[in-house]
Amino acid sequence: MSINAKNPRKRDQQRPLKEGWRQRWYDIIFEADSPWGRWFDIAILIAILLSIGIVSLESVPEYIGNSKLLMCEVFLTGLFTVEYMLRLICVRHPLRYAVSFWGIIDLLSFLPTYITPFLGRSSQSFVIVRSIRLLRVFRVLKLWRMMNDADELSTAIWRARNKVVVFLCVVLVAVTISGTLMYQIETISSNPAHENGIDPNSQFTSIPQSMYWAIVTMTTVGYGDVVPQTNIGKVISAALILLGYSLIIVPSTFVSAEIVNKKVEDSGLQCPVCDATHHQKDATYCYRCGGKFD
Amino acid sequence: MSINAKNPRKRDQQRPLKEGWRQRWYDIIFEADSPWGRWFDIAILIAILLSIGIVSLESVPEYIGNSKLLMCEVFLTGLFTVEYMLRLICVRHPLRYAVSFWGIIDLLSFLPTYITPFLGRSSQSFVIVRSIRLLRVFRVLKLWRMMNDADELSTAIWRARNKVVVFLCVVLVAVTISGTLMYQIETISSNPAHENGIDPNSQFTSIPQSMYWAIVTMTTVGYGDVVPQTNIGKVISAALILLGYSLIIVPSTFVSAEIVNKKVEDSGLQCPVCDATHHQKDATYCYRCGGKFD
Amino acid sequence: MSINAKNPRKRDQQRPLKEGWRQRWYDIIFEADSPWGRWFDIAILIAILLSIGIVSLESVPEYIGNSKLLMCEVFLTGLFTVEYMLRLICVRHPLRYAVSFWGIIDLLSFLPTYITPFLGRSSQSFVIVRSIRLLRVFRVLKLWRMMNDADELSTAIWRARNKVVVFLCVVLVAVTISGTLMYQIETISSNPAHENGIDPNSQFTSIPQSMYWAIVTMTTVGYGDVVPQTNIGKVISAALILLGYSLIIVPSTFVSAEIVNKKVEDSGLQCPVCDATHHQKDATYCYRCGGKFD
Amino acid sequence: MSINAKNPRKRDQQRPLKEGWRQRWYDIIFEADSPWGRWFDIAILIAILLSIGIVSLESVPEYIGNSKLLMCEVFLTGLFTVEYMLRLICVRHPLRYAVSFWGIIDLLSFLPTYITPFLGRSSQSFVIVRSIRLLRVFRVLKLWRMMNDADELSTAIWRARNKVVVFLCVVLVAVTISGTLMYQIETISSNPAHENGIDPNSQFTSIPQSMYWAIVTMTTVGYGDVVPQTNIGKVISAALILLGYSLIIVPSTFVSAEIVNKKVEDSGLQCPVCDATHHQKDATYCYRCGGKFD
Repeated sequence: MSINAKNPRKRDQQRPLKEGWRQRWYDIIFEADSPWGRWFDIAILIAILLSIGIVSLESVPEYIGNSKLLMCEVFLTGLFTVEYMLRLICVRHPLRYAVSFWGIIDLLSFLPTYITPFLGRSSQSFVIVRSIRLLRVFRVLKLWRMMNDADELSTAIWRARNKVVVFLCVVLVAVTISGTLMYQIETISSNPAHENGIDPNSQFTSIPQSMYWAIVTMTTVGYGDVVPQTNIGKVISAALILLGYSLIIVPSTFVSAEIVNKKVEDSGLQCPVCDATHHQKDATYCYRCGGKFD
Repeated sequence: MSINAKNPRKRDQQRPLKEGWRQRWYDIIFEADSPWGRWFDIAILIAILLSIGIVSLESVPEYIGNSKLLMCEVFLTGLFTVEYMLRLICVRHPLRYAVSFWGIIDLLSFLPTYITPFLGRSSQSFVIVRSIRLLRVFRVLKLWRMMNDADELSTAIWRARNKVVVFLCVVLVAVTISGTLMYQIETISSNPAHENGIDPNSQFTSIPQSMYWAIVTMTTVGYGDVVPQTNIGKVISAALILLGYSLIIVPSTFVSAEIVNKKVEDSGLQCPVCDATHHQKDATYCYRCGGKFD
Repeated sequence: MSINAKNPRKRDQQRPLKEGWRQRWYDIIFEADSPWGRWFDIAILIAILLSIGIVSLESVPEYIGNSKLLMCEVFLTGLFTVEYMLRLICVRHPLRYAVSFWGIIDLLSFLPTYITPFLGRSSQSFVIVRSIRLLRVFRVLKLWRMMNDADELSTAIWRARNKVVVFLCVVLVAVTISGTLMYQIETISSNPAHENGIDPNSQFTSIPQSMYWAIVTMTTVGYGDVVPQTNIGKVISAALILLGYSLIIVPSTFVSAEIVNKKVEDSGLQCPVCDATHHQKDATYCYRCGGKFD
Repeated sequence: MSINAKNPRKRDQQRPLKEGWRQRWYDIIFEADSPWGRWFDIAILIAILLSIGIVSLESVPEYIGNSKLLMCEVFLTGLFTVEYMLRLICVRHPLRYAVSFWGIIDLLSFLPTYITPFLGRSSQSFVIVRSIRLLRVFRVLKLWRMMNDADELSTAIWRARNKVVVFLCVVLVAVTISGTLMYQIETISSNPAHENGIDPNSQFTSIPQSMYWAIVTMTTVGYGDVVPQTNIGKVISAALILLGYSLIIVPSTFVSAEIVNKKVEDSGLQCPVCDATHHQKDATYCYRCGGKFD
C-alpha cells in the first residue's frame, strides 16, 4: 500500500544529505516518527477528509454553487498546493518524487480545482484521487504498531489466495448458469401476443441483467429492482438463494481458518539451537536438543 | 457500562454507614445480591420495558391520545418518581448520586412526562433515555455469572481494536471511491436535453447519496431505494459488491480469531511457584520447576 | 425434540408385553431400528411432505377448488387417519399416547380436513401442525448417527446461552434507541402546513414501525419498504448500519468459538484410572499416573 | 468435477499408444502438464469466456441481431468445432470420448449455434452448457497446486454433511411454519367487503409465496417485493427474522469448525513405525514406540 513505509531504503534515498532546514522539513513532511511529523500527517489527513466532505457536499443540489463551500475548497486546494511545493523542495531528487506514485497522486489532488473552471462539469471526479491520499493514514497508524495487524490481515488473505481463485471461478460459473437459467424461465411467455414468445414485462431483460441479479442475490444484497415474477421462477430462485448463500459463505471461512491456523502456529517459541518450534511461551529448555533459551 | 458493577469501592462509598432501614433499603435498591434486591431490579426492568412499549404505542396513529395508555404512562412515571426519591433518600451522599451518570439517566427517565404537556410534541424523545436504563439489566445478569461473558466479549473487541481501526479506514476509502465512481457513471448523460450533461432521473443525486448507497450495499443491507440503472453502472456495481463483500467480512473474522486464540491460551493452568502457563488442566507438577499444584 | 428418541425407557413402557402382531407392528410404526420400521417412517415423511405441498398449492389462486388436489388431500388425510388408528391399536396404553405431545400432533394433522368443510376458510392453518410432524425426521436421521451432530449443535448453543442473553439485551437497547432516534429525525418537519410539525409522508410512521426498520436493517435483510428520506436521516442510518452490523455479527462468532473450543477439549482421551484428560488419541499410558489404556 | 483430473489411469487409456503427432497433439489438447498444453487450455478458457460474453450481449435489446457479434460467435463456434474434431482424432477410442460426460458437453457447446437458425428463439440456453465447460479451469489451476485447496474445501463440506442435512430439515420446517403463519396473519381481513375474509391486497397471496418470502428473508436477501403490511405481521416478522438469522448462520459455523479442526489434526506428523499421530512437526523420535523419523 504505502511505498514509503515498505521500502525504508528507497525513502532514505530521498532524504537530503546535509543537515539543515531541508532535512528537518523532510523529517516532518515525509516521516511520521517525530511528534511534529506525526502532527503534520494528522493535519493533512484532516484537511483531506474536510476537502472530500466539501466536494461531496458541492454535488448536493441545494449546495451547488454555494460560495462558502467554494471558498473553503479554494483554501484547502491552496494548502495542498503549498504542501506539494514543500515536498518538491525538501526531497533530494524532486523529479523522482514528481513521477513517483504518491507524487502523481499528490499533484492530481489539487490540480483539477485549477482546471475545472475552464472545463465545466465533472470536477467531482478528483474526489477519487483525494480518497487515495487517505491511504496515507497507514503511515500514521504504523507508529501505533498497527501496521502489524494490516500485515497479518494481508498475510492471511495471501495464504488463502488459491482458495479465493478457486472460489471466484465457481462463483463465475454459478452466476452464469443461474443467470442464464433465470433469463430463460422468466422471459418465456405462452402469451401469443408477445413477439418471439418473450415476455416484454419481465425484469430479466437480458442475460447480463440476469447475471447482475444473480450477484446481487447471492451476496444477499437483494436490492429488489429485479425479482422473479413467475411461480416457477420463484421456486428456482429460492433454491438458488440457498445454494448461492452456502457458496458465498465459504471464502470468509477459509480466511478465518487461515488466521486461526497461523495463530496456533505462532503461539510457540522456536529453539535458537535446533530450530524446533511449538515450545511453550515460557519454556526454558528445548524439548528436542536441550538447548537453553535466552 | 455499569459504573456500579465495575467499581465496588465507589459503590460502597454510597452505602449508609449506620445499620437500619436506610442500609436495608440501599441493599435492595442499589444491590442485586440479595433475593429482595434481585426482585426489585427485575420489577424495575419490567416497568421500563412496559413504559417503552406504552410510549412506543402512543406514537402509532391509532393510539395517539388513547386515555388508557396515558393512564398507564402516568402510573409508571409516578413509579419511577418514587424510585428516584427512594434512591436519593437511601444513598449517603444524595448530591453525588444526583450528578452521577445513572442519577441523571434516572431523573431524565421520568422528568419529560411532567414537562411535555407544556411543550407539545416530541415527548417521545425520552424513550431513548429510558432505553439506556435497560442497560441495568447487566447488574441482574451479573448475579448469574453472565458478566464474565460480557467481559470476554469486550476483551475480544478491545484486543482486535487496532484491526478495527485499520478496517474502518479501508472501508472509508472504499466507500468514498466507489460512491464517487458510481456518481460519475450514473449521472453522466449523453442526452443533449439534460442540463450540464447530468441525468436528472438518476437515483445517485449527489456524492453523499452515492456514499450512502455504497454503505447500504457493502453491508449487504440493500434497501433498493438507490440502484444503478445504466448497464455500465450495473457491471461496476456488481464488481463493487463482490469486493466490498469480501472487505466487510474481515473484521468479524478477526474478532472471532481473537476469541478462539484467547480460549486456547486460557485453556491451561498456571504454576503457583514459577508462573509457567499452559499446563494441562489436571496437571500435578509444573513442567518447568517441578512445583506441586494445589 | 423427539420425546421418543430421548427417553428410551418411557418409549418401552408403551411397547406391548406379549409377542405377537401388535408388538411387531409397534416396532414398525414407532421404532426405526428395523428395515421395515425405517421404510415406514420414510414413507410417512414423504406423505407429510406431499400433503404440505398439496395444501400449500391449494392456497394458490389458480388451484383453489382444484378437484385433483382435493382428491389427493382426501387420500392423504385417510392415510394419516389409518396411521393414527394403528398407533392407537399398537401401544400398550392408548390413552397415554393420545394425550402425549406427538399423539395430539398426530391427531391435529388430519382432524381439520374433516372439520373445515363445515367451517369455511382458514383450513390451511393446520399446515403448521403437519410441519411439526416433519420433525420426526430426526428419528430416521438418528439411525444414520446424525443425532450426535444435532446434539453437538444444541450443546454449543446451550454453552453460549449466557452470551446470547447478554447479546439480545444489547440488541433490544440498540433497536429501541436507534428506532426512536430515526423516528424523531425522519418525522420532524419544518413545513408549517404539517400538523404538529410531523411530516405525514415519512415512512417512519411510529416508533414500533421504526423499531421494525431497525431490526430489518441490523440483520441486513433490508426490505426497502421503510427507508430514510432526509439527508440527516441517511447519515445517521449509515452510521447505525455499520454499528448494528458489527453488533449482530457477534453471537455467531461466540457459538463458533464454543464449537471450536469444545472440539479442542474433546480431541484427547481420558485416563480410565485417574481421569486425566487431553491424552493423545493413540496414547498407551497415562501421562500422569502411568495407568494403561484399553 | 473433472473426470480427467481425478482418474489418471482412465485418462491414459485414451492416450494413443504409438509415438507420433497424435500422441503429441493428445498431450497438448488433453493434458495441461506441458507448456503448450497449458497455453492451449488457457486459450480455450478465454475463448469460452468470450463466447459467453458475446451470447450474453446478444440478449441485450440494443444488440439483438448485431452483425459483428454474430460474426464473432460464428468464428468462436467454428473454433469449438475444430477443437472437437481434434479431440476426436487424437483419442485412442473416439466413440468412448464422444459419449463421455466432457465429450457430450464439448459437443453441446457448439451444436446449438448450427441448429438455432432453424429453431428461432431460445438459442441462448446453451450458454449454460458453455458455462459448464468453464469448470475445465480446474485442470489448469491444478498445475499451480490449487486442486489441494478445492479438495480441502470439499472434504470440509463432506465432513459437515450430516450437520447440513439436519440443518436443511430444520430450515424446511422453519420456512413452512413461518410461511404458513405469515400467510394466515397477513391475509385475514376484518373488512366485510372482502370475499371469504381474505384481503386481496395482501402481498402474501398464497402459502408458496409466503414460503418464498420466508426463504428470501431468512437468508437476509430481503428483496422487498413481499413485505408484511399489518402491524401484527411486522411484529411476528421481526421475531422470525431474528430467529431465522440465528438459524441460517449455523451451517457456516460448522463448516468453519470442521476446517479449523482438521487443520489442528493435520498439524502433526505420523510415526512411520506405529502410525501414532500428532507429533510435533520437527519431532525426531515417536513419543509412543520410540521409532526414528526420516
